[in-house]
Amino acid sequence: MQEIPYKIYLNEDEMPKQWYNVRADMKNKPAPLLNPATMQPMTENELSAVFCKELVKQELDDKTAYFDIPQEILDFYKMYRPSPLVRAYCLEKKLQTPAKIYYKFEGNNTSGSHKLNSAIAQAYYAKMQGLRGVTTETGAGQWGTALSMATAYLGLDCKVYMVKVSYEQKPFRREVMRTYGASVTPSPSTQTEVGRRILQKHPGTSGSLGCAISEAVEYATTHDGYRYVLGSVLNQVLLHQSVIGLESKAALDKYGVKPDIIIGCAGGGSNLGGLISPFMGEKLRGEADYRFIAVEPASCPSFTRGRFAYDFCDTGMVCPLAKMYTLGSSFIPSANHAGGLRYHGMSSILSQLYHDGLMEAVSVEQTSVFEAAEYFARTEGILPAPESSHAIRAALDQAIKCRETGEEKTILFGLTGTGYFDMLAYEKFHDGQMSDYIPTDEDLKHGFDGIPAQPEI
Amino acid sequence: MQEIPYKIYLNEDEMPKQWYNVRADMKNKPAPLLNPATMQPMTENELSAVFCKELVKQELDDKTAYFDIPQEILDFYKMYRPSPLVRAYCLEKKLQTPAKIYYKFEGNNTSGSHKLNSAIAQAYYAKMQGLRGVTTETGAGQWGTALSMATAYLGLDCKVYMVKVSYEQKPFRREVMRTYGASVTPSPSTQTEVGRRILQKHPGTSGSLGCAISEAVEYATTHDGYRYVLGSVLNQVLLHQSVIGLESKAALDKYGVKPDIIIGCAGGGSNLGGLISPFMGEKLRGEADYRFIAVEPASCPSFTRGRFAYDFCDTGMVCPLAKMYTLGSSFIPSANHAGGLRYHGMSSILSQLYHDGLMEAVSVEQTSVFEAAEYFARTEGILPAPESSHAIRAALDQAIKCRETGEEKTILFGLTGTGYFDMLAYEKFHDGQMSDYIPTDEDLKHGFDGIPAQPEI
Repeated sequence: MQEIPYKIYLNEDEMPKQWYNVRADMKNKPAPLLNPATMQPMTENELSAVFCKELVKQELDDKTAYFDIPQEILDFYKMYRPSPLVRAYCLEKKLQTPAKIYYKFEGNNTSGSHKLNSAIAQAYYAKMQGLRGVTTETGAGQWGTALSMATAYLGLDCKVYMVKVSYEQKPFRREVMRTYGASVTPSPSTQTEVGRRILQKHPGTSGSLGCAISEAVEYATTHDGYRYVLGSVLNQVLLHQSVIGLESKAALDKYGVKPDIIIGCAGGGSNLGGLISPFMGEKLRGEADYRFIAVEPASCPSFTRGRFAYDFCDTGMVCPLAKMYTLGSSFIPSANHAGGLRYHGMSSILSQLYHDGLMEAVSVEQTSVFEAAEYFARTEGILPAPESSHAIRAALDQAIKCRETGEEKTILFGLTGTGYFDMLAYEKFHDGQMSDYIPTDEDLKHGFDGIPAQPEI
Repeated sequence: MQEIPYKIYLNEDEMPKQWYNVRADMKNKPAPLLNPATMQPMTENELSAVFCKELVKQELDDKTAYFDIPQEILDFYKMYRPSPLVRAYCLEKKLQTPAKIYYKFEGNNTSGSHKLNSAIAQAYYAKMQGLRGVTTETGAGQWGTALSMATAYLGLDCKVYMVKVSYEQKPFRREVMRTYGASVTPSPSTQTEVGRRILQKHPGTSGSLGCAISEAVEYATTHDGYRYVLGSVLNQVLLHQSVIGLESKAALDKYGVKPDIIIGCAGGGSNLGGLISPFMGEKLRGEADYRFIAVEPASCPSFTRGRFAYDFCDTGMVCPLAKMYTLGSSFIPSANHAGGLRYHGMSSILSQLYHDGLMEAVSVEQTSVFEAAEYFARTEGILPAPESSHAIRAALDQAIKCRETGEEKTILFGLTGTGYFDMLAYEKFHDGQMSDYIPTDEDLKHGFDGIPAQPEI
């Protein structure tokens, strides 16, 4: 067999030209979004008030297996893709494991994560529709940065509502977005009806993702030429992110390598869904078998401790309901939880796959995640994002198991991004100030406070 | 001709196996370092008290053209190299220039710059010599981060003296170094004789690079098993950094492309020297001709307004003297100068080449540098470091000139790193708080205050 290099880069002509829609191969399709007013499935028309038309089509289409990637998006992808598929030789050696470890590194672009794969797609369709701009929310700022880069490239306006506490504590993320020409507003703001209402009710509030979503949606639906875009959870996002898995598979196929275990961190599911899609497709079609492991924080354990039920996508309970594994839309992870992966729910696609036993899930505590992060940084050179480090933790655990059993398993995991903007969390870790918090059953019950009884359809 | 992809990546087997020593092809060799006590050339023995033996040999050897890169360094290079040679299609299109623009991007590793190329080499030779560790100074932190990564990989101790003001203002850089296991001390400290002396004299001082150098050298020379390492200026550093130019040349050769103009930013010369070395070698041997342009900040203009003279390498005037273009070792750039490129002198090799008319130099003001940085970020996606943006400014100017004249020149420039840790400077720029400062002739005169008359040898 050909010797495998440290990094496998596809040539430009080997890069995927189509996205893969895993829903096409699912026997049990993910349940549709529901209109909170009528509790009926959201129609194309209703969704088009919020999202771009072409994206609504992608959102609703569970039959078409492949979507052509438009040339302008392919060109943009060429600026920062293909991302490297790395053979973790150094990690294998240090762990003294017979396992073969690969990771797909999505952090080598200025947004620092895989979010750019969907940001450029969503911005592109907005431009094709003749829109002036897009609105979105951002917490830690990865998604907002990615969207700013995409809109700067296409010449679109970009309006980002950034959770106020992040706006103040992460001024550097904000500056990156400004460098790309985005207008960044701390949320809640006085620019929107909902923002003013919240500020009146809670004058000193430092904001929340749920509130920022509500403001972004309100701005988009009350201003001509704007639509709202979202960086995770949605079916369209998983479709765009399939480029991660397609590239990984093409790179492995080139060297005749078949992974046994595929591991990804899971917040809303954008990375995990993208990474596993083409492999899951093979499994669904009975062509191959893989073990899939979703890794989530013990402090926000939607897969491992959530319910599979209809729930609101936002904390403000104004957005549609999705059927998903959820901790309840009123759930807010403990303040000592660092980084992302703090969404209360999970992609409907991934939820259905998990429910059908096609995928496993584990939860890990953050101290052990940062231990894995530091070990990885010192061994493989790359400083990982806290989110990505959840997948590292699980991959290390699997590789150590192989050392114990002597099994030569092939492990593939998704390294979604870099940790340059997360050094406060690393500092806490170095100073021994980091703690773990696992929500009690009582905490979890409160996530469903105020949520109306779930409809059966 | 074959179509040129957006990014040219060499295969592993095409990566350079040797460093190129441009001194071997120079008719006028760079002048030797002088011992400040005797004003005689530093001997191998004298230098070995401070630097590793093998590195001293590299420092003094101006005859050997090629040095084999040891296998362990080649393996480390494979973790983050080859770096991409990017064809700036988007930039060309936006500028509407007939010029063909390429840049060698060295920022896709966690240290965020090219510094890692020499850090791993210097750490490796320290390990081969059986040392326990290395010491160094760092200002903004790029070099310290690179060295931490290299020593973590090799299991060496790493002691970094970080200028106190940076230590306090750039806590995130410090945390990255700690993640890689380095011990980071704000300088001046009470750990060294020289630190205590300075603290006694200037109790409230926020430190300087010169003082941090003195502390790092003192620690190395007074502790068993330690040597001092340096990230720029030295001949050995340019030797290691030649990997940048060798990879660039191999990538261009693959597609039959010959650059007309090669542009690099210049502080101490590590990146510029590394980028141009193999091309300069061809020019020196009469095999090809190229225009080389060094770009320096108008606020620290050693090439364009300095003297070609023997001067101390450090502000403290305890290190050897080098013959170089210098603003005087007492020169300190204006406080409103952002980023690196603030060294008072310049590599002896580059100084000699410039003196011999083999290279040009321009100086640029920082507001125009940040304009170029933002333009580049929005067009090519990558958020550049302020240092690298000096080269971008000059490349844009050349490409615009081509638009005016219609010439289809091929421009290659070095994009040394990313700006993630420089967002304070970007913020100043966005807020209109950034100003330019060009030192007066009177300012420049003071750079030579207290420096003894220059020896003639």
